[in-house]
Amino acid sequence: MTKVNIAIVGASGYSGEELVRLLLAHPRARIACVTSRQSAGQTLGQFFPRFASHPTARKLGFSEPNVDTICSALGDRGASVVFLALPHGVAAEFAKPLLERGARIIDLSADFRLKSAVVYKEFYGHDHPAPELLARSVYGLPEMYREQIKKSNFVASPGCYPTSILLPTVPLLRAGLIKPTSIIADSLSGVSGAGRKAEPDYLFVECNESVRAYGVPKHRHLSEIEQELRIAAGVPVTIQFTPHLIPINRGILTTLYLAPTRELRTEADFSAYATSVQQCYVNAYGNEPFVRLLEGKALPDTKNVERTNFIEIAWRLDARTGRLIVLSAEDNLTKGAAGQAVQCMNLLCGFEETAGLL
Amino acid sequence: MTKVNIAIVGASGYSGEELVRLLLAHPRARIACVTSRQSAGQTLGQFFPRFASHPTARKLGFSEPNVDTICSALGDRGASVVFLALPHGVAAEFAKPLLERGARIIDLSADFRLKSAVVYKEFYGHDHPAPELLARSVYGLPEMYREQIKKSNFVASPGCYPTSILLPTVPLLRAGLIKPTSIIADSLSGVSGAGRKAEPDYLFVECNESVRAYGVPKHRHLSEIEQELRIAAGVPVTIQFTPHLIPINRGILTTLYLAPTRELRTEADFSAYATSVQQCYVNAYGNEPFVRLLEGKALPDTKNVERTNFIEIAWRLDARTGRLIVLSAEDNLTKGAAGQAVQCMNLLCGFEETAGLL
Amino acid sequence: MTKVNIAIVGASGYSGEELVRLLLAHPRARIACVTSRQSAGQTLGQFFPRFASHPTARKLGFSEPNVDTICSALGDRGASVVFLALPHGVAAEFAKPLLERGARIIDLSADFRLKSAVVYKEFYGHDHPAPELLARSVYGLPEMYREQIKKSNFVASPGCYPTSILLPTVPLLRAGLIKPTSIIADSLSGVSGAGRKAEPDYLFVECNESVRAYGVPKHRHLSEIEQELRIAAGVPVTIQFTPHLIPINRGILTTLYLAPTRELRTEADFSAYATSVQQCYVNAYGNEPFVRLLEGKALPDTKNVERTNFIEIAWRLDARTGRLIVLSAEDNLTKGAAGQAVQCMNLLCGFEETAGLL
Amino acid sequence: MTKVNIAIVGASGYSGEELVRLLLAHPRARIACVTSRQSAGQTLGQFFPRFASHPTARKLGFSEPNVDTICSALGDRGASVVFLALPHGVAAEFAKPLLERGARIIDLSADFRLKSAVVYKEFYGHDHPAPELLARSVYGLPEMYREQIKKSNFVASPGCYPTSILLPTVPLLRAGLIKPTSIIADSLSGVSGAGRKAEPDYLFVECNESVRAYGVPKHRHLSEIEQELRIAAGVPVTIQFTPHLIPINRGILTTLYLAPTRELRTEADFSAYATSVQQCYVNAYGNEPFVRLLEGKALPDTKNVERTNFIEIAWRLDARTGRLIVLSAEDNLTKGAAGQAVQCMNLLCGFEETAGLL
Repeated sequence: MTKVNIAIVGASGYSGEELVRLLLAHPRARIACVTSRQSAGQTLGQFFPRFASHPTARKLGFSEPNVDTICSALGDRGASVVFLALPHGVAAEFAKPLLERGARIIDLSADFRLKSAVVYKEFYGHDHPAPELLARSVYGLPEMYREQIKKSNFVASPGCYPTSILLPTVPLLRAGLIKPTSIIADSLSGVSGAGRKAEPDYLFVECNESVRAYGVPKHRHLSEIEQELRIAAGVPVTIQFTPHLIPINRGILTTLYLAPTRELRTEADFSAYATSVQQCYVNAYGNEPFVRLLEGKALPDTKNVERTNFIEIAWRLDARTGRLIVLSAEDNLTKGAAGQAVQCMNLLCGFEETAGLL
Repeated sequence: MTKVNIAIVGASGYSGEELVRLLLAHPRARIACVTSRQSAGQTLGQFFPRFASHPTARKLGFSEPNVDTICSALGDRGASVVFLALPHGVAAEFAKPLLERGARIIDLSADFRLKSAVVYKEFYGHDHPAPELLARSVYGLPEMYREQIKKSNFVASPGCYPTSILLPTVPLLRAGLIKPTSIIADSLSGVSGAGRKAEPDYLFVECNESVRAYGVPKHRHLSEIEQELRIAAGVPVTIQFTPHLIPINRGILTTLYLAPTRELRTEADFSAYATSVQQCYVNAYGNEPFVRLLEGKALPDTKNVERTNFIEIAWRLDARTGRLIVLSAEDNLTKGAAGQAVQCMNLLCGFEETAGLL
Repeated sequence: MTKVNIAIVGASGYSGEELVRLLLAHPRARIACVTSRQSAGQTLGQFFPRFASHPTARKLGFSEPNVDTICSALGDRGASVVFLALPHGVAAEFAKPLLERGARIIDLSADFRLKSAVVYKEFYGHDHPAPELLARSVYGLPEMYREQIKKSNFVASPGCYPTSILLPTVPLLRAGLIKPTSIIADSLSGVSGAGRKAEPDYLFVECNESVRAYGVPKHRHLSEIEQELRIAAGVPVTIQFTPHLIPINRGILTTLYLAPTRELRTEADFSAYATSVQQCYVNAYGNEPFVRLLEGKALPDTKNVERTNFIEIAWRLDARTGRLIVLSAEDNLTKGAAGQAVQCMNLLCGFEETAGLL
Repeated sequence: MTKVNIAIVGASGYSGEELVRLLLAHPRARIACVTSRQSAGQTLGQFFPRFASHPTARKLGFSEPNVDTICSALGDRGASVVFLALPHGVAAEFAKPLLERGARIIDLSADFRLKSAVVYKEFYGHDHPAPELLARSVYGLPEMYREQIKKSNFVASPGCYPTSILLPTVPLLRAGLIKPTSIIADSLSGVSGAGRKAEPDYLFVECNESVRAYGVPKHRHLSEIEQELRIAAGVPVTIQFTPHLIPINRGILTTLYLAPTRELRTEADFSAYATSVQQCYVNAYGNEPFVRLLEGKALPDTKNVERTNFIEIAWRLDARTGRLIVLSAEDNLTKGAAGQAVQCMNLLCGFEETAGLL
C-alpha cells in the first residue's frame, strides 16, 4: 500500500506527541518531517524515549519549523499531509504558505475553526492573521462534516472541549429535542489539556490532590461550540460552560444539563421522550465507528477511552426535574485532538476511516 | 480546663479516623472510648499508625460497639459526648438508648437529618428505625442553626455534599436572589467519600486516571438538601444534582448553576445584582469563622481546604447567560463530616466554636 | 492468514484483561473462550467497557472455568493456545487435563516456573499440585529460552519482578562480570501488581500519597529469580530483594546494586570494565526486539514503557564506590506478564515474535 | 507567653510554605517578616490561599529580600530568629550580615552543612561564599546535636535525604553494629522535593504514572551524609545512594541495605545480633519525641508521617542473606526540612522541643 508523507509542525507538545504515537503506527502514513523549535537537533526517539525503538523515531530528527524545510522534506506535496500542532496565531503563519504550495493541512489550533474573524478577535484577543482563509477550512468533526472533509484539503480540527460537548448535543438540537437556550456543560479535564507548559499551576504538586475550575465564565472554546450549535439549532445559541482541572493525565468528562422542548407531565410523556432521545442517538451514531452509546447502568468513564479515539455517551432523563442529563467521556489528546485529526486525514486521503485508530 | 469525655462509635472508618485526628488534638476533649467491630482488640495507635505516638492512642483500645461498654467507659455521662460514625440504620440503634441514658449525641449518619420518616424511606429504602426521635434532633450546620445546636443534646451532622451545596445557596434563597426551581449542583468528590469499603470500584487502579459520575440522577443526599432548601426558600425545592468521583483522597468541589430572580438586561442591572449577591454573602458569612469568601480572581480549590474545617466560596455572574455561578470547596471529611461535628460539639459544650479546629 | 484459537482462563483479573487487550488486536489470534467465575454471563464488552466496541468483545461471553467448556469452545485443539491467568495452585488444576487433551498452555501463574517441588512448597506454602509436570514446562523468558519456547507446548510465563531483575543481571552473570553473592534488587511496583483484589490495602485512599515496602525480606518471587540466576552463574545465588508499592497503575522500576568481579583501582580499570559491561549488554540485547538499552544521560522511566512490551535498561559504574548500578523499567502487566506471554505464543506458534506487540 | 519574632527569607517555595504553616500555628512564634522576590507586594494569604483566614496571613505582605528590611521588620533582634529558605549560594549572602547584626539563623540551604569548603566546591560546583563561617554553624539534627543546637545561634538544617538516612544509620555505626563500607541507601521522594520550580520534568503529566531514578550516581546530599557518617563511624565512609522521584506530593521512603560487623552463622548469632540492633535503637530513640520505632509487622509508610515531624523506622534481619534492612519514612518538607528547622528553633529559644509540632 502506498503511504502518504506526513509533516508534524510543532511535534514536541502533547498533541504533537499523540500525533507521533498514532502516525508511527499508522499503516498508510510515513512521518517525513517533525519540527520543534526547542527540540531541533534531537531525534524523535531521543526526545520521546517511548518511541525510541521505532525505526523512524531512531532516525528522524526534529528540524526548525520552516516552510521550505517542511516542503523539501515532504517531496511530492500532492501526496502529503501537514499537521499543524501550534499555538493559535502561529498556525496561520504556516497554513497560508503551505496551502499555496499545494499541501493538505490539518490544523489542530483554533485558527481556522471559526467562520467569523470578528468572533475570533473577541475570543482570542487579536486580529485574525489570515481572515481570507476562514471560508476555505472545514470543521474537522467527522460525525458532522464527513463528506466535506473527504473533499477538503484544509481541515480545522476541533478543540477537546468542543468535541466532548458537540457530539452529545448536536443530534438533539437537530432533532428539536432540547431547548437551545438551556444548555449547561460542566467539563472536567486532565492536565495534558494545558499543554507541555512549564508553569507553576501545572506542576505535579499543584495539581495532585487538587481540583479547581478555571476560565469562569468565558472560555475561548465557547466560540466554536456556539458556532456549531447555532448551525445545528438554526438559531443563535449561548451556552453555560465551566471547565475544571482534575489530577489525571488524559481525559475529559462532560456532564450536560439540558431542557426537553416538550413538557413532560405524565409517565407516558417521559417514556415517549426517552424513546425519542434514544432513537435520535441511534440514528446519529448507531453506525459511527468511534461513538459508543452506553447501555444499561453504564456511565462514561475516562479510563475506558484513554488512548483511544472513542467517545462514550450516556444519558438519563430525570423524572424529578424533567431535565435530560447527558454525559460524555473522551481522551482529550485522541478524540479531542490528534486522533480526530488522524480520522480526518483518513477521510481526506481516501483511507479506511478507522485506519490506525483501532 | 476541664475536658469532656468522648466516645467515637464506629471509629475505624474514614470519618471516624478524622474524628480521632481532631479530638486527639482538641484542648477540651478526652477520647475515652472508641469502638469498631473489625478492630476490637487493637489500640488506636496500632490501627492508625499515624497517631501511634500520641499517649492516648498508645493506650486506648477499640472495644466492641455496645451501649453498656460505651456508657461505662464514659463514666459521668452528663459531661460526655458520643459521636456516631456508623452506617445509616445502625446509628439509630445506638442513638436511642444512649439518649435515654443521658448522653449527648452527635450523629454523622443520615438517620436523623430528615424530619420526615416518609422521605427517609423513599431515599434510604427501609422504614426509619426510630421515627419518634426525628423531632428531637437538630441539623448540625452551625452557620444555619447555631443557636439551636447550642441548646441541643442531639445533633444530626450534615452530609458532605449537602454542606457543600447548602452553604453557598441558602443565603441566596433566603434573600430571594435566586429562583428555587433553577438549582443545578455539579459535585466532584475525592474517594474517601465512599468510605473504607473494600469494593473493586474503589481500588487504586480503578480510580486513578479515571473520572466518572455515579448515582445519576437520584442520590440519597438530595433528601436532606431539598429539606433544607425548602426551609430557606419557603417553597418546595427540587434540585438537579450530579456527583462525580475523582482521583483525590479528600475534598469536594461543587459548581452551582443558579438563575437570578430579577431579569438582568442592562449593565446597571448586572452591577446592582452583583452588589446584592456580594452583600448577601458578606452579611451571611462575613463573621463566620469557617466560611472563606474568595476575592478577586481566586477560585475555590480543594487543596486549599484539605484537612481544614474551612469552606471556600466564590461566585461569578455570567454576563453572556445571565446565570449566577457559585463554586465551593471543602474537605469532605472535615467541614463535610468530622470537623463540622466537632464544631457542633464545641457549640453544645459551650467551648470556643473554633476550638481544636484552627 | 490463519488465526490461532485462544482461550483465556481467568480473564477478569488485570493480567487477564491485558491478555484480552493484546489478543483482541493481534493479527494472528482469535479469542474463542474467556472464563471467569465472577463474570460468567457477561460479555467481554460488558465487563471491560474499554473493549466494548470490538466485535469479538461485543459477542463473546465469559463462561465458567471448566476444561470441557474450554476445549469445546476451542474446537480444533491442535491449533489452539490456552492462557492460564489464575492464582497459583489453581492453574495446575487446569494445566494438567488441558495438556492431556493436546492444548498448548501458557501459564501466567507461578505453578510451573520452578523446577523443584521442594522449593515450591517452601515459598508457596503447600505441596505442588502436579510435580510430575515440572520437568515439562519451559520458563517463558524469550531472551533466555527462545529456542526452547519455540519447541515447547507448555510455557511458564515469568513473574513481573523476576523479569525486571533477570533481564538486567543474567548477561552480567553469564559473562562473569558481577559477583553472584552481591546482588541487591530494590523494586518499585504499581498497584495493578497486587491484582484486582478488593482488599483495604489496595483502596485508592490507602495507596495514593503513600509508598511502602512489603514482603520484607522473603518475597515469593525470590524462588524463581534465584533458580534462574543459579543457572546463569553456575553456582547457587541468594539475592536481596525488596519490593515497594507506589501509587501508579502500571510499571515496575528496579534498581540493582552489583559488585564487579574485578577489582577496579585505576581509571583504566574502570574504563575497561565499563567497556565490558556495555559490550556484554550489546551482545545480549543489541538485536532483541523488546529490550531497550538506554544511551547517554537517559535513565529508565516506567512512563516510557507503560502498555508496551519493552523493558528499558541503563547502567552506571560508580567511581566512588566501585559498584555497578543497573536500572530497569517495564510494564508489570505487559513485559512483566501478558505481553511476554503473547511473545511466547508468537514463538511457539511460529509467528513473528513481535506480532501484535508493537 | 512571650513570642519570638520570626523572619522567613524565601518564603514562597515549598519549604518556606511549610515554615509558614508551622509557624502561623506555633504558640511561641510571631511571623514578622516574609520575603520573596516573585511574590513581593502580595500578602501571605493571597499567595497561599490555604492560610488566608489566619489574621497574620491576611495582613502580612511579602517584602523584597533585603537585610535592612528584614532587620527593621524584626525590631529587637536579640529575640528574633531568621529562617533562610533560599537556594545554596544565596543563603550565605544573607547569613553573614544577619549574623553580624545579631540575628539567630536557621539556614535550610546546604551552605553551612559542610565543614569543608573543599567538599562544598566538589559537590556544589562553586567556591563557598563564606568559608570563614563554616566553623560556626551547628548541623541541625536534634537527635545527634541537641546540646550544641541549644547553645547555638546559627543552625544549618539538614537536607531531606540526609535526615532519612542518618537517623537510621548513625546509632548503628556508633555502636559498631554495621560495616561503614557497606551502606546502600535507596530513597524514594515525593515531587515537592524538587521545589516549586517551573520545569517540564516536574509537570503533573511528566510525574504522574511515572517513576524514575535521577542524580545517579553522585547526588549533592552525599557530601553531608558522608560527613556525618564519618563522625559517627570514626573512619571515612563512602555510601551508595540512589534517589528516585515518585508521584506523591510529600514524603521520602528510604530503604537501607547494611552489613552486620559480626559474622552471623547460627540462629543464636542472628538472635543475639537482632537483640543488639533493637537495643541500640531503643537506647538512641526510645525517648525521642519525633522518632517512631515500629513494632511487630508494621513497616514505614509515608502516609503515616505526612505533614508531621515524625520519622518512622523499622528494621528486618534477613536470615537468608545475613543483611540488615532498615527502612525509614518521613515528610521531606517537615522532618526533612521545615519541621526539623522549627524543632531546632525550639531548642535554641529554650521552648519545649515539641512546641508547635504535635
